[in-house]
Amino acid sequence: MANLTIALDAMGGDVGPRVTVPAALQALASNPSLKLLLVGQPDAIQPLLAQQSVELTSRVEIIPAENVIANDAKPSTAIRQSKGTSMRTALELVKTGQAQACVSAGNTGALMGLAKLMLKSIEGIERPALMTILPNQQKGQTVVLDLGANVTCNSEMLVQFAVMGSVVAEEVAKIVSPRVALLNIGEEETKGLDNIREAAALLKETAAINYIGYVEGNELLTGKTDVLVCDGFAGNVTLKTMEGVIRVILSLLKSTEESKKNKKPSWLMQLAKKWLKKRLMKRFGELNPDQYNGATLLGLKGIVIKSHGAANENAFKAAIERAVQAVDRQVPDRIAARLNIVLPRSDQ
Amino acid sequence: MANLTIALDAMGGDVGPRVTVPAALQALASNPSLKLLLVGQPDAIQPLLAQQSVELTSRVEIIPAENVIANDAKPSTAIRQSKGTSMRTALELVKTGQAQACVSAGNTGALMGLAKLMLKSIEGIERPALMTILPNQQKGQTVVLDLGANVTCNSEMLVQFAVMGSVVAEEVAKIVSPRVALLNIGEEETKGLDNIREAAALLKETAAINYIGYVEGNELLTGKTDVLVCDGFAGNVTLKTMEGVIRVILSLLKSTEESKKNKKPSWLMQLAKKWLKKRLMKRFGELNPDQYNGATLLGLKGIVIKSHGAANENAFKAAIERAVQAVDRQVPDRIAARLNIVLPRSDQ
Repeated sequence: MANLTIALDAMGGDVGPRVTVPAALQALASNPSLKLLLVGQPDAIQPLLAQQSVELTSRVEIIPAENVIANDAKPSTAIRQSKGTSMRTALELVKTGQAQACVSAGNTGALMGLAKLMLKSIEGIERPALMTILPNQQKGQTVVLDLGANVTCNSEMLVQFAVMGSVVAEEVAKIVSPRVALLNIGEEETKGLDNIREAAALLKETAAINYIGYVEGNELLTGKTDVLVCDGFAGNVTLKTMEGVIRVILSLLKSTEESKKNKKPSWLMQLAKKWLKKRLMKRFGELNPDQYNGATLLGLKGIVIKSHGAANENAFKAAIERAVQAVDRQVPDRIAARLNIVLPRSDQ
Repeated sequence: MANLTIALDAMGGDVGPRVTVPAALQALASNPSLKLLLVGQPDAIQPLLAQQSVELTSRVEIIPAENVIANDAKPSTAIRQSKGTSMRTALELVKTGQAQACVSAGNTGALMGLAKLMLKSIEGIERPALMTILPNQQKGQTVVLDLGANVTCNSEMLVQFAVMGSVVAEEVAKIVSPRVALLNIGEEETKGLDNIREAAALLKETAAINYIGYVEGNELLTGKTDVLVCDGFAGNVTLKTMEGVIRVILSLLKSTEESKKNKKPSWLMQLAKKWLKKRLMKRFGELNPDQYNGATLLGLKGIVIKSHGAANENAFKAAIERAVQAVDRQVPDRIAARLNIVLPRSDQ
């Protein structure tokens, strides 16, 4: 992996450099061939690099950008006024080839709009989609998209998402002939919305896609499908619900432990509980937002990773790792190649 | 609670009488003034009542109905051919006043269609909605609707759901001035689908509703809102996702215990783990489909409870209890009264 350079929007997210810079240093430490361009206010970034080893800081370059897009800015306004912002500058570095990918925890709408404007969609893709890879119960992985880039989708878009999801499942999750399903509210053919039923009909006719039918929300983590396709509204609802339920259960575990403390159980009981909790956390950890953070904006002629705005250091590092992986697997090129097979362009 | 009579579609669900009849006996045992009409094939029901105490069986009446609507039947066809089915007969008993509510685990689409056809909607309600009450992290309850009765909803329907949900939160969950939120993919006003934004504008103008804005899927169980309103597609996705995540986590707990067995820990450790698991299950149990089973078809001039098709005995009993509660609180009458205040009819 020679010459692997990734641009980070160092100012993005709820916290900014105090999360992104330490995460960058972590990522550099675990990827010896990685170089990072930290885009943002030098005064905010520089002090966080002080007293770090030269081995790491020699692979860091600060790219000055004085402005920052606010997290709550209206995307259309933010895009119009984006000149000189850290987000736009980071995307420009990808456009000009100085970086092979860009990672930002900033304003989602602005990032999607700017990325599409500057990097353009792959031919055959109407609109990019937000994609993530979740661990599943079968110790495998499930590719889920769209997670919120497009509130409404027509059937062609859903088919394009299915193609992109398939490529990611094959190239990143290394699944042979990945199963593709549409998220719906029942398994019968007659169920759901028109666009979903139309997409189902199209997918059945697409030999290059291993389409298996509809699955319901309860199958999100069961591994029943390798790729789960839905519009951005449903995708956001299912992912957020999953995160919320996991958080509530983790907090129940915590409060269970506390209430036990009040009852002053024996030290052996305490030990057993500690041990069990560790085991549970290890398992739950797989589904911990820290570890699967980093949704990929799929369908662009460039790699853009969106981190949670509230990402902590570990989570932002996970997003950088996603970018490294996407560059390594040449995801956009492979999607374009697959689209040429699945959806021949009208001029061919 | 004098003269409380509920009709059960004894044949509905994946299993039929072998689940519904024992559940009925359980419900009778815990509600001394309850009478149940078991609708279905007498040959299938009668043997399950044998050797039961007269105290219980004296409050059971078998209403013969030879036909059964298949779980996988197309609703429109099933409704056309519904004469003499257990589901239709059970609804007829509500229509004629012989029963005050009906419970069925049968074909959801057929039940919704038949119920609307036979019992009619409350004036001011365009289409009934499926509603459930979930426990939340604050040890309170959250009313969620629509869970799948209407795949698409216009803004007026969402407002009607908000009114119905408010009444249930007040009358059943006993919440004073319940907070009402719309499920969306962001908290900003500009987010989401047109119908949601329009409903938000309408709800802001409705003094009788304590509208608090948008919430995202991760707030389903946090108690941030008392009533969560959404279209049937999103509602189904969020509820199913929640169920699926809980099941996966419970199965992780189970496998954690098994793997421990392999390591043959000391008996004291075993004991401690058992105790902890019991505590965890007790907490998780609140969210166990067995206990919150029974979605209410809200907005009809009668009480209809839809049980999960896969409900076991405990779950079906929970659905019967929902019906008892709805009759006790006179939910349809109270919704009608509230609608008269909130949405004055054009002829008034």
